[in-house]
Amino acid sequence: MDYFYGPGRNHLFVPGPVNIPESVLRAMNRNNEDYRSPAIPAMTKTLLEDVKKIFKTTSGTPFIIPTTGTGAWESALTNTLSPGDRTVSFLIGQFSLLWIDQQKRLGFNVDVVESDWGQGANLDILASKLAEDTAHTIKAVCIVHNETATGVTNNLAKVRKILDDYRHPALFLVDGVSSICALDFRMDEWGVDVALTGSQKALSLPTGMGIVCASPKALEASKTAKSFRVFFDWKDYLKFYKLGTFWPYTPSIQLLYGLREALDLLFAEGLDNVIARHARLGKATRLAVEAWGLKNCTQKEEWFSDTVTAVLVPPYIDSAEIVRRGWKRYNLSLGLGLNKVAGKVFRIGHLGNLNELQLLGCLAGVEMILKDVGYPVKLGSGVAAACAYLQNSTPLIASRI
Amino acid sequence: MDYFYGPGRNHLFVPGPVNIPESVLRAMNRNNEDYRSPAIPAMTKTLLEDVKKIFKTTSGTPFIIPTTGTGAWESALTNTLSPGDRTVSFLIGQFSLLWIDQQKRLGFNVDVVESDWGQGANLDILASKLAEDTAHTIKAVCIVHNETATGVTNNLAKVRKILDDYRHPALFLVDGVSSICALDFRMDEWGVDVALTGSQKALSLPTGMGIVCASPKALEASKTAKSFRVFFDWKDYLKFYKLGTFWPYTPSIQLLYGLREALDLLFAEGLDNVIARHARLGKATRLAVEAWGLKNCTQKEEWFSDTVTAVLVPPYIDSAEIVRRGWKRYNLSLGLGLNKVAGKVFRIGHLGNLNELQLLGCLAGVEMILKDVGYPVKLGSGVAAACAYLQNSTPLIASRI
Amino acid sequence: MDYFYGPGRNHLFVPGPVNIPESVLRAMNRNNEDYRSPAIPAMTKTLLEDVKKIFKTTSGTPFIIPTTGTGAWESALTNTLSPGDRTVSFLIGQFSLLWIDQQKRLGFNVDVVESDWGQGANLDILASKLAEDTAHTIKAVCIVHNETATGVTNNLAKVRKILDDYRHPALFLVDGVSSICALDFRMDEWGVDVALTGSQKALSLPTGMGIVCASPKALEASKTAKSFRVFFDWKDYLKFYKLGTFWPYTPSIQLLYGLREALDLLFAEGLDNVIARHARLGKATRLAVEAWGLKNCTQKEEWFSDTVTAVLVPPYIDSAEIVRRGWKRYNLSLGLGLNKVAGKVFRIGHLGNLNELQLLGCLAGVEMILKDVGYPVKLGSGVAAACAYLQNSTPLIASRI
Amino acid sequence: MDYFYGPGRNHLFVPGPVNIPESVLRAMNRNNEDYRSPAIPAMTKTLLEDVKKIFKTTSGTPFIIPTTGTGAWESALTNTLSPGDRTVSFLIGQFSLLWIDQQKRLGFNVDVVESDWGQGANLDILASKLAEDTAHTIKAVCIVHNETATGVTNNLAKVRKILDDYRHPALFLVDGVSSICALDFRMDEWGVDVALTGSQKALSLPTGMGIVCASPKALEASKTAKSFRVFFDWKDYLKFYKLGTFWPYTPSIQLLYGLREALDLLFAEGLDNVIARHARLGKATRLAVEAWGLKNCTQKEEWFSDTVTAVLVPPYIDSAEIVRRGWKRYNLSLGLGLNKVAGKVFRIGHLGNLNELQLLGCLAGVEMILKDVGYPVKLGSGVAAACAYLQNSTPLIASRI
Repeated sequence: MDYFYGPGRNHLFVPGPVNIPESVLRAMNRNNEDYRSPAIPAMTKTLLEDVKKIFKTTSGTPFIIPTTGTGAWESALTNTLSPGDRTVSFLIGQFSLLWIDQQKRLGFNVDVVESDWGQGANLDILASKLAEDTAHTIKAVCIVHNETATGVTNNLAKVRKILDDYRHPALFLVDGVSSICALDFRMDEWGVDVALTGSQKALSLPTGMGIVCASPKALEASKTAKSFRVFFDWKDYLKFYKLGTFWPYTPSIQLLYGLREALDLLFAEGLDNVIARHARLGKATRLAVEAWGLKNCTQKEEWFSDTVTAVLVPPYIDSAEIVRRGWKRYNLSLGLGLNKVAGKVFRIGHLGNLNELQLLGCLAGVEMILKDVGYPVKLGSGVAAACAYLQNSTPLIASRI
Repeated sequence: MDYFYGPGRNHLFVPGPVNIPESVLRAMNRNNEDYRSPAIPAMTKTLLEDVKKIFKTTSGTPFIIPTTGTGAWESALTNTLSPGDRTVSFLIGQFSLLWIDQQKRLGFNVDVVESDWGQGANLDILASKLAEDTAHTIKAVCIVHNETATGVTNNLAKVRKILDDYRHPALFLVDGVSSICALDFRMDEWGVDVALTGSQKALSLPTGMGIVCASPKALEASKTAKSFRVFFDWKDYLKFYKLGTFWPYTPSIQLLYGLREALDLLFAEGLDNVIARHARLGKATRLAVEAWGLKNCTQKEEWFSDTVTAVLVPPYIDSAEIVRRGWKRYNLSLGLGLNKVAGKVFRIGHLGNLNELQLLGCLAGVEMILKDVGYPVKLGSGVAAACAYLQNSTPLIASRI
Repeated sequence: MDYFYGPGRNHLFVPGPVNIPESVLRAMNRNNEDYRSPAIPAMTKTLLEDVKKIFKTTSGTPFIIPTTGTGAWESALTNTLSPGDRTVSFLIGQFSLLWIDQQKRLGFNVDVVESDWGQGANLDILASKLAEDTAHTIKAVCIVHNETATGVTNNLAKVRKILDDYRHPALFLVDGVSSICALDFRMDEWGVDVALTGSQKALSLPTGMGIVCASPKALEASKTAKSFRVFFDWKDYLKFYKLGTFWPYTPSIQLLYGLREALDLLFAEGLDNVIARHARLGKATRLAVEAWGLKNCTQKEEWFSDTVTAVLVPPYIDSAEIVRRGWKRYNLSLGLGLNKVAGKVFRIGHLGNLNELQLLGCLAGVEMILKDVGYPVKLGSGVAAACAYLQNSTPLIASRI
Repeated sequence: MDYFYGPGRNHLFVPGPVNIPESVLRAMNRNNEDYRSPAIPAMTKTLLEDVKKIFKTTSGTPFIIPTTGTGAWESALTNTLSPGDRTVSFLIGQFSLLWIDQQKRLGFNVDVVESDWGQGANLDILASKLAEDTAHTIKAVCIVHNETATGVTNNLAKVRKILDDYRHPALFLVDGVSSICALDFRMDEWGVDVALTGSQKALSLPTGMGIVCASPKALEASKTAKSFRVFFDWKDYLKFYKLGTFWPYTPSIQLLYGLREALDLLFAEGLDNVIARHARLGKATRLAVEAWGLKNCTQKEEWFSDTVTAVLVPPYIDSAEIVRRGWKRYNLSLGLGLNKVAGKVFRIGHLGNLNELQLLGCLAGVEMILKDVGYPVKLGSGVAAACAYLQNSTPLIASRI
């Protein structure tokens, strides 16, 4: 039996790791295999072709690395930059902060553009930095597409536009950890040079795969980048791609089969339908928050995230107590507030393989917890608001029509 | 990929088969084994000891038969009765009807005591029949503890009292398929002679085990009962119990391990806490139905079932459409109305390994479906009523305090 | 952790339950579902069509019953015969004995044709019985295709020929529990009226499905057969077949998905290739036994079974000790000698989803055990004999050429 | 159905990834969880305590990193050394070659001590290098305990002795990827400063965990080491160890539960018994190779590996054809010869959760393949030699006595 058993399902609403579909669990429930047999390369070939679709790229080169999002960051940076290189990076929450910390520790010279937590990246400052940088000392613009700590989605199309406006050659590196496969993301159209995600987010797999995709320009940069790297080095992958054996070192057989199934599910639903579902669940959540009389940590609608909602609690409530109580009483897992917003926000993750009724169960749970901790919520109010919207907008399940 | 794939979890609220806990799925995910090795008898021994606890019996003898509830019925009848024997049986819904049909087809002479669907067994008629039967021609009183088709729970203590009042020696046979492990059931205290359940109900296992428990008096009766039987014959089991090998023919290895885990979960939660949880979820459901302005098919509070609620819909709505729509749009599985109440009721099963937020997700779904089919429900009303109750009555999860 | 843990795989060589392929385990690793949704009937339809192929019938009607082989026997008998009916049945080992016992206890009048254990059914006596029976008092000829206790395969084509020779209308009922999906079996060509198997045998599933197939003549007989039956009654299945919902009571969702995968695997390999593989493994086993200087319990080559080999041990050895030692020392599960041959034979099951190297590991284990218990085996001799044959006869794996 | 389906089990005898026990697969078959809930830290605490046992250390600090062996190497190096630092490293096969390549690419100054492939590390040269290095310019001695490409086990006790003899302060870094949990390994006794392994080797898990253990001296070194690192930085782990939340970024929930079960299995068997089992299986394999008349790639008995045997084939045979044929015809996965020994050796991995009969099945398969490819093997000879040894040396399974 498990540690800390409680009856019924755990309601997993942290913004990652997220719920794994049963069929993906099944696909992964298997013994190891020789990854040098013909079977694994044959499957890998389909995976590399198909993961490009989730980045919306045809020209990119994907790398499926046995690591986490943190490792994927490191792969993106060390393959394209050299110690001392100047980057522009936006600090808007805990995950952008951690990426900036990584950039610094890897020896880069980081121009940090800071915003209030709850705001998106300040792109005006980016514009002025690029404008000034006629010498092209800025080698990369690094941005987190969706800041998981505050539920803020940045406008990547606009970043590209600014880069283009100033004809600036800086690489455009994007953390898509809590966006790719859930939010609208267009690598080729937006001219993203490196995009990356982690398997345990919208792909709805276990942790263990950092998926990185490099544009031709990024690949070119990797040939001269001087950052020390071996485990994360794209070169070794490219060498094995040529050989047709694909793996420079042992991959997780189970995650490969899991990824195959996860991609099949995404394509069966249709990637655009998946994104629309996230938009629907995001909006439903925000309507509930509003009905409860609470504020979204995200300060403007243009930044609202469809994968995670950070909810501000009144000052007399400790948001950590909300999370604790959810787990202890309702078998509900919510996200804590992190760092600057610790105690002030709790987070509802609504990404990955999730449907309307799962979310409504969570929202009902949050209402009861709010009451538990002394917030004068009108029970049923958030669910009512979400239902009113969902009942109008939820499509029939395509395979069941 | 599965037939009829839809994103997110299926919300399974039919009154059986019910949700299987992940740890039970894990326990069953195994290769076959030799059931004649020392391992399987050693485990079986613990299972037979422990299943007695779910019947609340110390004197009973359990049989774990590779069959369904229908087979368990047949085992109860053929082991204790002879063709031509007179039984009294209560027709109050589809499952009691099917059991009566079985009794007739197995050659018994059945006194059918019929009630409106939505009412409990008419025990006054039982009393008068027993009163008249001074010759003791009635060999068995057969009763469904919880009629799954209408959500009606019969009062077994009262049946025993009537039998005792008339000092009638008839066997007391109880279908506990949708009650045992969920509702208060006391084999020894209530003098039940044969009680039975199926693995896919409150035990939260797959279908495949009919679990039958016989009192010493029932065992005695089996020695002279003349109904033909082999597969269902207790005698073969008793022979192998003595040998210590337990199985007259091959059991499902997977279900044995699953049962071991299912029992461990029940005991970890505490059987009385499990029953209290069902009472809580049953009441929450009924409060929601009331808030929606709909009627319970069950006509009196004394018969309200804590494992399934049959909801009457207005005449202008086809309840089957509610079920179809749930599946097609919200990945929600509700129970159809059966036979006499087809089209008139839909059923919410709330039994087995289930918690508050799962139920609330279902209730929110039902609200949206009601709106979909044209019933003027106030969205959020049922969830609000259920939450108001649950927020006051749900205990902390014991292992997490 | 499991009871009685030992490192490495258990080597399962009892003649049932047998090894389950990993992909079948995966297919079954799932939550329950509403069996009244469109999904389960849609799948069931394919299953009923496809199981006919394993019986090699186009005219038969299959029933997938949640029971074991013993229940499948009971279904075959009670649906076609009435109490008092005369059957001819062959006693050649423990399983034919148990079926005869069942026939008697169900009220039939059984003509038992007994042979030595190790011999096949005495068909000369059948011929003379049929010759004498001009009044056609014999209603059914019941025969076990493959007697699992002694490793004897009966000649069903010959039984049909005898029936035809005497133009005898008796039903031809066949226990194919340890033959179907492994040995050559032709329901239509051989005019079998009821054939049956169990899921845990050559289908390589868990226990829990008795699969029974009835010829048009058997179905016709079922209309007038007077044996009491409900759970096993084909009539209820036929009613639900017409409704298109297929199941008179709850099936095991998991086993349905498992059966789908098991059939897919059989058809992917090709049923005739599966049968050829069993022939190959059977012969390899017999060559090993010969090389060890031991005798096959089966007395003539014409009866050799390709699914199980019963090996006679010298009188100074207790065959049960061989089985015990296999389990205790080598994690090898062999079959015990049963009843008359208890202590005298041990059995090697070589049926189901099994390949050459698995068998060779088992044979090497048996050699070591024989040495352990004092039999002067030449180590390596049996494996050498089996390898010499297998190295010549094993085809390339079709999907890997 | 899987790509490249063949009947029966795959016989997995590559030296990693290795067979996963069924109970470990079960433990991992689960949904994601919030790794910030109390459950995961509570379990992690036990894991960190218990993994120390597999290193035989009480003073070491373990890091369970979501990476592979290659990543574990990188963690060991970058945390303890600075670019330009001098290391001594032994080139004796493909894996030591790759580690040396990594050391160079990470900017270290590597003294490569090369031996013939098939020989162990030349420790005399180590001694002379240390003798000369009175200035202590050598910062680390890096050695692969068991070279998986050639089946060579190095003598670590002797390395320590040499370091001690010269009172040399160099760090002692050990790749234990194919040794730890299988061969005798004693971190504290041998004064190893960093030891590491990967989950898919003798721990018998999927790929995905690099487990690194650091001595107090190594931890001290990490405070001043100047290699850039973030993902692999021990500092982040240590920070979260202090917080009691343990994980600087998302771990694989499934692998944590898998590791818990894998350790439980190891301790149930007893680590010394596990090592003895590997010794037994290693010796049995070598006896078979000898009986076939083939040579071990490993040139001296002192270097024989108990986890992998590299078998030299005659010049007229391409060892890759042996591997291909095993997979195509017998569902047997053997290891290829790598780099210098490509085409010349094939490898039998005999590590992890494996038992005697599994190995014997593999050896029988190899015999048939050898015959297939034209080598005049006497069929049965290798199995006979292995059995003769195993029948004398295999203990009873402790739990079954």
